[in-house]
Amino acid sequence: MSTKLSDLNAADRDDFVAALGNVFEYSPWIAEQAAASRPFSGVKALFAVMKDVVDRAPAETRLALIKGHPDLANKTQRAAGLTHESNAEQNSAGLDRLSDAEFEAFERVNNAYKAKFGIPYIVCVRRHTRDSILRDFERRLPNDAQTELRTSIEEICRVAALRLDQLVIGDDRLSVHGRLSTHVLDTHSGKPAAGISVVLTELSDLGEARVVARAVTNLDGRTDQPLIGGRPVPIGRYELMFSVGDYFAGRGVPMSDPPFLDQIPLRFSVSDPEGHLHVPLLVTPWSYATYRGS
Amino acid sequence: MSTKLSDLNAADRDDFVAALGNVFEYSPWIAEQAAASRPFSGVKALFAVMKDVVDRAPAETRLALIKGHPDLANKTQRAAGLTHESNAEQNSAGLDRLSDAEFEAFERVNNAYKAKFGIPYIVCVRRHTRDSILRDFERRLPNDAQTELRTSIEEICRVAALRLDQLVIGDDRLSVHGRLSTHVLDTHSGKPAAGISVVLTELSDLGEARVVARAVTNLDGRTDQPLIGGRPVPIGRYELMFSVGDYFAGRGVPMSDPPFLDQIPLRFSVSDPEGHLHVPLLVTPWSYATYRGS
Amino acid sequence: MSTKLSDLNAADRDDFVAALGNVFEYSPWIAEQAAASRPFSGVKALFAVMKDVVDRAPAETRLALIKGHPDLANKTQRAAGLTHESNAEQNSAGLDRLSDAEFEAFERVNNAYKAKFGIPYIVCVRRHTRDSILRDFERRLPNDAQTELRTSIEEICRVAALRLDQLVIGDDRLSVHGRLSTHVLDTHSGKPAAGISVVLTELSDLGEARVVARAVTNLDGRTDQPLIGGRPVPIGRYELMFSVGDYFAGRGVPMSDPPFLDQIPLRFSVSDPEGHLHVPLLVTPWSYATYRGS
Amino acid sequence: MSTKLSDLNAADRDDFVAALGNVFEYSPWIAEQAAASRPFSGVKALFAVMKDVVDRAPAETRLALIKGHPDLANKTQRAAGLTHESNAEQNSAGLDRLSDAEFEAFERVNNAYKAKFGIPYIVCVRRHTRDSILRDFERRLPNDAQTELRTSIEEICRVAALRLDQLVIGDDRLSVHGRLSTHVLDTHSGKPAAGISVVLTELSDLGEARVVARAVTNLDGRTDQPLIGGRPVPIGRYELMFSVGDYFAGRGVPMSDPPFLDQIPLRFSVSDPEGHLHVPLLVTPWSYATYRGS
Repeated sequence: MSTKLSDLNAADRDDFVAALGNVFEYSPWIAEQAAASRPFSGVKALFAVMKDVVDRAPAETRLALIKGHPDLANKTQRAAGLTHESNAEQNSAGLDRLSDAEFEAFERVNNAYKAKFGIPYIVCVRRHTRDSILRDFERRLPNDAQTELRTSIEEICRVAALRLDQLVIGDDRLSVHGRLSTHVLDTHSGKPAAGISVVLTELSDLGEARVVARAVTNLDGRTDQPLIGGRPVPIGRYELMFSVGDYFAGRGVPMSDPPFLDQIPLRFSVSDPEGHLHVPLLVTPWSYATYRGS
Repeated sequence: MSTKLSDLNAADRDDFVAALGNVFEYSPWIAEQAAASRPFSGVKALFAVMKDVVDRAPAETRLALIKGHPDLANKTQRAAGLTHESNAEQNSAGLDRLSDAEFEAFERVNNAYKAKFGIPYIVCVRRHTRDSILRDFERRLPNDAQTELRTSIEEICRVAALRLDQLVIGDDRLSVHGRLSTHVLDTHSGKPAAGISVVLTELSDLGEARVVARAVTNLDGRTDQPLIGGRPVPIGRYELMFSVGDYFAGRGVPMSDPPFLDQIPLRFSVSDPEGHLHVPLLVTPWSYATYRGS
Repeated sequence: MSTKLSDLNAADRDDFVAALGNVFEYSPWIAEQAAASRPFSGVKALFAVMKDVVDRAPAETRLALIKGHPDLANKTQRAAGLTHESNAEQNSAGLDRLSDAEFEAFERVNNAYKAKFGIPYIVCVRRHTRDSILRDFERRLPNDAQTELRTSIEEICRVAALRLDQLVIGDDRLSVHGRLSTHVLDTHSGKPAAGISVVLTELSDLGEARVVARAVTNLDGRTDQPLIGGRPVPIGRYELMFSVGDYFAGRGVPMSDPPFLDQIPLRFSVSDPEGHLHVPLLVTPWSYATYRGS
Repeated sequence: MSTKLSDLNAADRDDFVAALGNVFEYSPWIAEQAAASRPFSGVKALFAVMKDVVDRAPAETRLALIKGHPDLANKTQRAAGLTHESNAEQNSAGLDRLSDAEFEAFERVNNAYKAKFGIPYIVCVRRHTRDSILRDFERRLPNDAQTELRTSIEEICRVAALRLDQLVIGDDRLSVHGRLSTHVLDTHSGKPAAGISVVLTELSDLGEARVVARAVTNLDGRTDQPLIGGRPVPIGRYELMFSVGDYFAGRGVPMSDPPFLDQIPLRFSVSDPEGHLHVPLLVTPWSYATYRGS
């Protein structure tokens, strides 16, 4: 699905626009104008030009860009059909599987926001969980119109950057990905803990917790892949659950019955979707520790 | 409600039996026989004699003692009326508030056990949670009849010891109580963490988690009372939840948004109801540790 | 050697003065004046009156009180004879066993201070180590004369409070004692670590380190007595050394050869001589942690 | 100084022997015999053949190889001149800078060993510290002659492997190097601790401690280079000293005076010279922890 930047640099204008027309929702005019600045030395340069096109557009054009975006989690709109990209983005945050309470909360958000500002509530959902979308709304609703127009464009550009990153391969990459990783150190034996089951769950105030990743630690006490990688780590609350009881039992370590520690939950929040967050576990059958590593 | 041992030593036989007739369920004959050994130097001596009466009783008497006990969580029996003591004991373990799944599990246990051994399944429920009662059943069901007769008597004596401990005040006490305590050390400021909300919950595989204690840490980072004290700490799985986000926010400590750590859960099991278990939390906004202390 | 406060309250004036004449160095007039305020309800009340006598004394009397104090670590004065109390106090801080470099440093301090202020450098040495005396001097030397007169009186009162605390027994006690304690928790076995050799050493920049206490942990992982207790914990730098290699070897725990951890040193400073400082060790053969507890 | 394996494969026999004649001390015959097995696919294959030459040599030849080695720390032999390689190896372990007590201990070792076995005491000193050489001697002296002949050849092969690794560059490498690394995590701020001075010292029972490495942590809380890398990590006891007081003071963190923690020493032993040993520090102004990582 992705194209080499060199091919786009060499393509005729129509193919260039066809390839990048959806980077900004329903707005191929941005790719059209950016085409004239070819060749691009890298993906960052390409994105900078597209962003510049948006920034220099007349106010009414920018407003139309904003208004072209769908509501979040709006069932009617979803039934009528979103762009392929919007649909995938909303699903990534679980907006297609909301609890009733969450659905009502999103409807309230959309309506309250539209009532105040006359534009849809826009947020780059790939950088968020259900909870943090609602939380951000509470923070943004008191803003004035000017601030929200600016914030909407910023969020639109974040969406566009993530779409562009998937579409175009160049020598450089946009800094749009984060990483969440863990490792387990068995301080009872002084070795990395291999074979420990790890489950990462996204927590939610209004809806159900959602399993985001499952893994088993390898010989190095790490997971072969980061728990989240190659994408933003959505802002939100998480729980990592480590099955240490099975691990120590399997090693024949003397324990109480039932074992003092069995399933160890670590709860933490992500605040920087593009950052590297490392949440390790140092553990014996009788003690454990964690810290925010990098 | 409780009586001094010295008064019991001096009481006439009928009053002695009236006071201690229910220490063993429906079995005043045990108190009657024990009365002859007065005076008792202490509560331990008194209990030893009562236990001795049981141990020396003919097999059929001991069987009758066992059969006099009610089923656990049996709604029909509960409706018909249990002894005051049995009722309070079953309620202490939450057997009056079972989920449907738990109720079915208990019914299965009672029936399977009675079908195999011809006696009710007896366990000292004040030393257990719902989960550990069911777990112990799985362990005991494969036993032979002789083992279970012996185990039943042991559990009956544990029940009796706890009843006696409540009824009689002497210079000594039976070793029937444990303690569960915590403290929170703020290693960010190097001081005990005061004002932290702590909630202790009993976890359950089949039913609802049940809040067992709520407390707020004092200036010493401890709770004014132990989380559980003056009674056995029921065998089972627990979660301690510490509201550290509010604490650090209240102190103006710089944090991420949302805070990396907010509600910290510590999950652990109790295996020794009469032991002293200390589960502390050492915490900064970015790290924490716990261990089994004493 | 110590007297009951009730006896002092009832004693004739001369005996009262004889008992307390040395509480302030070479200054029985303070006890003489305080005698009139008898009876004292407690030791704190007695000390408050004595301190008040000092505070209300004419400036020249206060100056004479200050000038009556010996230099610190002055060999000539020591040879000529100090009061019993001064001698014991200076020895407690090791001023009788200085290295050459330390001796020169103290001589320099005394001379520089006397040259600037015309009074001896006075500090309550029972609250200090060699290093912290010299360190405090560096901090005080830039002060003005008024400040140093006030500070000298404060230090003299601290000396007097400690002397009084040793001399008089009442229902209350002056808050002049601190405590330094430790405990070792073996998080490999989940139990207090018994039988671990612990050595507390006072560190020194210019002189030799000095062993202050030796102990072995008991079944509770603690030392039977606090490492320092019943006296101020001298301000200064310390090292606690724990022999964990022998401990784990004695328990047959598998270790590397040589053991990864053997002698574990914890270095820390004391800043509050009257405070309670707890420095625990949580340890496995492969990890350890410590924190300032209370 | 190093040569490509491909060049050695292509070289004439004399050049090959000239290049590798000193891999085994005073024993060019090993390279001479190995030359016939060319071409070698890699350095491991080359070393395997050289080792095989040794293993297949007649007993008297092997004994001569052993006897060709110098004593450790023998001043007379050193004055008369060692091979360049032996000299560098002995210096690497500090055998040129022994204290009197150490020198006597080494003399005792050499003499006792030679008296019992009639051969010099041989150990691959690049894998050892002064202490561990003496410690290994105590372990080996009770052995029988056969064991010691075998052990001597093993140690000679370890020496040779390290020499060969330095001399020849191929596509593969011998597994003769270890690594010792650290990192500092500031759990007060939740970030890697940059700018912390770290000093690694080799400890010695009989002689002076010797600084092995000095570094300052970078923005990642790590040192730019491993503390020890690209060579075996000598078996022995070490102390890592971290200047955390300066670090926290520089960040304006509130601390006691003097700071509770200032210079933090971590003492540990290395037992596996070819392993990767990671010794991190997690630290606040009031607490710290370390563990054996990998």
